[in-house]
Amino acid sequence: MAEYKTDIEIARAAVKKPIYEIGDRLGIPAAQLSPYGHDKAKISAEFTTAQAGKPDGKLILVTAINPTPAGEGKTTTTVGLGDGLNRIGKKAVICVREPSLGPCFGVKGGAAGGGYAQVVPMEDINLHFTGDFHAITAAHNLLSAMIDNHIYWGNALDIDVRRVTWRRVMDMNDRALREIVASLGGISNGFPRESGFDITVASEVMAILCLASDLQDLEERLGNIIIGYRFDKTAVFARDLKADGAMAVLLKDAMQPNLVQTLENNPALVHGGPFANIAHGCNSVIATRTALKLADYVVTEAGFGADLGAEKFFDIKCRKAGLKPDAAVIVATVRALKMNGGVGKGDLGREDVGAVTRGCSNLGRHVANVRKFGVPVVVAINHFVSDTDAEVQAVKAYVAHLGAEAIVCRHWAEGSVGIEELAWKVVEMAESGDARFAPIYPDAMPLIEKIEEVAAQIYHASEVSVPKTVRDQLKVWEEQGYGHLPVCIAKTQYSFSTDPNLRGAPEGHVVSVREVRLSAGAGFVVVITGEIMTMPGLPKSPAAERIHLNEEGAIEGLF
Amino acid sequence: MAEYKTDIEIARAAVKKPIYEIGDRLGIPAAQLSPYGHDKAKISAEFTTAQAGKPDGKLILVTAINPTPAGEGKTTTTVGLGDGLNRIGKKAVICVREPSLGPCFGVKGGAAGGGYAQVVPMEDINLHFTGDFHAITAAHNLLSAMIDNHIYWGNALDIDVRRVTWRRVMDMNDRALREIVASLGGISNGFPRESGFDITVASEVMAILCLASDLQDLEERLGNIIIGYRFDKTAVFARDLKADGAMAVLLKDAMQPNLVQTLENNPALVHGGPFANIAHGCNSVIATRTALKLADYVVTEAGFGADLGAEKFFDIKCRKAGLKPDAAVIVATVRALKMNGGVGKGDLGREDVGAVTRGCSNLGRHVANVRKFGVPVVVAINHFVSDTDAEVQAVKAYVAHLGAEAIVCRHWAEGSVGIEELAWKVVEMAESGDARFAPIYPDAMPLIEKIEEVAAQIYHASEVSVPKTVRDQLKVWEEQGYGHLPVCIAKTQYSFSTDPNLRGAPEGHVVSVREVRLSAGAGFVVVITGEIMTMPGLPKSPAAERIHLNEEGAIEGLF
Repeated sequence: MAEYKTDIEIARAAVKKPIYEIGDRLGIPAAQLSPYGHDKAKISAEFTTAQAGKPDGKLILVTAINPTPAGEGKTTTTVGLGDGLNRIGKKAVICVREPSLGPCFGVKGGAAGGGYAQVVPMEDINLHFTGDFHAITAAHNLLSAMIDNHIYWGNALDIDVRRVTWRRVMDMNDRALREIVASLGGISNGFPRESGFDITVASEVMAILCLASDLQDLEERLGNIIIGYRFDKTAVFARDLKADGAMAVLLKDAMQPNLVQTLENNPALVHGGPFANIAHGCNSVIATRTALKLADYVVTEAGFGADLGAEKFFDIKCRKAGLKPDAAVIVATVRALKMNGGVGKGDLGREDVGAVTRGCSNLGRHVANVRKFGVPVVVAINHFVSDTDAEVQAVKAYVAHLGAEAIVCRHWAEGSVGIEELAWKVVEMAESGDARFAPIYPDAMPLIEKIEEVAAQIYHASEVSVPKTVRDQLKVWEEQGYGHLPVCIAKTQYSFSTDPNLRGAPEGHVVSVREVRLSAGAGFVVVITGEIMTMPGLPKSPAAERIHLNEEGAIEGLF
Repeated sequence: MAEYKTDIEIARAAVKKPIYEIGDRLGIPAAQLSPYGHDKAKISAEFTTAQAGKPDGKLILVTAINPTPAGEGKTTTTVGLGDGLNRIGKKAVICVREPSLGPCFGVKGGAAGGGYAQVVPMEDINLHFTGDFHAITAAHNLLSAMIDNHIYWGNALDIDVRRVTWRRVMDMNDRALREIVASLGGISNGFPRESGFDITVASEVMAILCLASDLQDLEERLGNIIIGYRFDKTAVFARDLKADGAMAVLLKDAMQPNLVQTLENNPALVHGGPFANIAHGCNSVIATRTALKLADYVVTEAGFGADLGAEKFFDIKCRKAGLKPDAAVIVATVRALKMNGGVGKGDLGREDVGAVTRGCSNLGRHVANVRKFGVPVVVAINHFVSDTDAEVQAVKAYVAHLGAEAIVCRHWAEGSVGIEELAWKVVEMAESGDARFAPIYPDAMPLIEKIEEVAAQIYHASEVSVPKTVRDQLKVWEEQGYGHLPVCIAKTQYSFSTDPNLRGAPEGHVVSVREVRLSAGAGFVVVITGEIMTMPGLPKSPAAERIHLNEEGAIEGLF
């Protein structure tokens, strides 16, 4: 197999099957697929609803150590494992998130896997795809427009313009829109007030779409969105503005899971993609549930490292959707472990077994954490050409010491043939019946204790510092009936602590809660620690400057 | 045929054919169609390009008298005439504009025709359709983000932040975004400056997409966009920011014409939809050209009344794309003529032959104007149940007096059977070879004289008042090589004059030019007279409050 091809070159050389064939393998009749071109389709609501009574396949979560600039390859491993399971004769579907459009024009490349473990058509998936994110943007901004319109026409709901918490969104990296003053220009443009834009993936509408079980539940949740507060401090809901119906109409098609395929022509559902800090960072419940009805194995991923992504997958998505994961894969690379062991990015090319071993403390803690949810764990070493045997052995030894197994995977370079061993191990774990999944805290626990529980159990913090205003706010929400909600902690993804520079497995740190927000539509309380960026900016020389159509009309420079 | 059904009820009852069948009738192979669901498809660039050498069919423009609140039914007549031509055995395709999403949530209903003359699927067409407008929004806003990002990172191009003319767009009626101050919040968010949003259909990117002949031309035009000026007042282009390539990538699919069908299963291309005041208000050149290669008759429409829409269709679209229209249909209704004759909206139900005759002055001027372009004219009386025979006869007599014919059309109530007579007349006119199309002014005429020519010939104004600053600006653009461009006059659509209350056929009024703008990418000089709204607002009780999904998951309240 030719090496050193770029992801886009590999993706473009893929021999795709017609999407109806992919659907047919899963038992989806052609009439229940709504095609978008010849290689993408949405699965009808009628079909997904009709699967309700069928038994579920096994659910496998792919998560990772804390991300480093060295890269871990979580989506790549998710795709590779799906192909690997199909290769060894299992009926497997992967469920991954849809990438955001905005960041494609900044620094990051695509988010559809890499090397010989990708979902295709990768250019479409990374650009407009089937329009889901555009629909979310429109639904979100319709509500925004209806808020200011309500105020303009007399403000019958008595909304305090200083307390409107609902902003606007755009699927673009545009720092100029972070903080704005709107409604300027005189009487006919309304009442000037401060506001701003977040990137679309940070919209509560995105989180709602990913947690809703069907269109009815979607509309109900949209109505529950709190857009701000009255002068008497009572909450104003999207329902009070009668915005929920029109928002649901805009999201009607976006609620249908998207079917595509891997480079090896195996089925993949790519649907939804909320932020993994202020939201829960998983693909849609409707896609995961549908996949579980159609396949024996469903491989899915969660955002960032296991401290953020897996915790939210378990405590928010699985809890709320009644999902019971059967096994988890924690992805690590020798390079990223080296960085966790103190090596700088420029020195990753040199063998350093000591650094690898030191960095394994990060991996070890994630293994222990995932086990706390009652889910059996295996470690996938996503192999790089520069990894030495000694380094790989160090990881294997460390993991063996934990009573688990670390398996070298070469799916990036070799496709499914390089990940067979992991696939067999996952089957063994899933079929063992060892999983005893349970969230880490019960619904009934007070909100403040939920935060403390996650900080202690998952982050190994010694203390949670919560200002009185935040404690009071949490109490008010509990009195209003929101106490049963899970917490969604927004923390840096680079460390177990709230300090992004603290790699490895820090202990005894303090988690300072700065602010809490109620996502009443999505159904969680967002707990903000430190600075959280919800609208990225572009770098000095953005990727957009190099993206263009070549003479054959093909896209260049995107990845 | 059952009467009093709503448009959406009629549309939903339509028996649609698979889109591949519709394409097949036009000789488009399935592989050259990219389906969006089962009833919409994009026509590949490969296919449209390959048609270049083929002969063209006849081009029929449907335009109208000045719009009134009584409604005229221009799109309805365009669709009806297409069905009528097919009914009498001609191979006809209609080419209409894509409706804008934002206004659907305000007051207006859909823009896909009405009654038994509609294009379907009307809900999709009025909502996200194939995502073209979302792609335009993204491309426009990417450029906006790159401008502020360039300034943020040091402003190497020396852009004067006070002279950035490129705003942002959103496909939403949101008056709060008309005027904003952006980049607030401190150093990391950039340099605060005044800006604002227009609705997407007002974007120059929309006008460019509709005038570009292919992807290469599209990228060239995108590069020509002027985003603002340096401190030395020289222009800064999108090309200087290296934004043109990435914008073209975002618009790759949006450039492909959309194929749908009428209620009678005849082919329709629905593609592009620029504003008809600050832009030229016609569907895309690529769709019209493609249709001309595939059919013997192509029926298309232009925005607003003939003073704005037809003038721009002839002087901008046809001039630039080398199109030669063979006949024109001017749509009038008895009700709208009555309003032009001085009757208030509440009194339209009463017979008033005198008012109809007085109102015919408006129609008469449009007939004379269209003839000035060398295009033969027929009048279509779009029939309402309340029209009396005497009123209809008054219109017929008036038009006969002009040496033309007025034909009663009942396509709204009856479909194609109600418009056969008009179809036969259009065939006769188009086949007569009488058309001698020419724009009303030559490319070489100075810009100021072009404005004067349109004001005198089309608006019947006695004078054009142009401030010295505007005259100087036009001279500068001529020196810079933009003197050959056509002018695109933004004027109220309700009158030949710039006073929206002056109905009928006013004479001797003054056209005051307030401002000129250079759309260097689209290739025209925008001339602004009076107040032009480029971001609508929502009404007190917006349609969005009533739009929802019913228990079967179907959309209610949209139309």
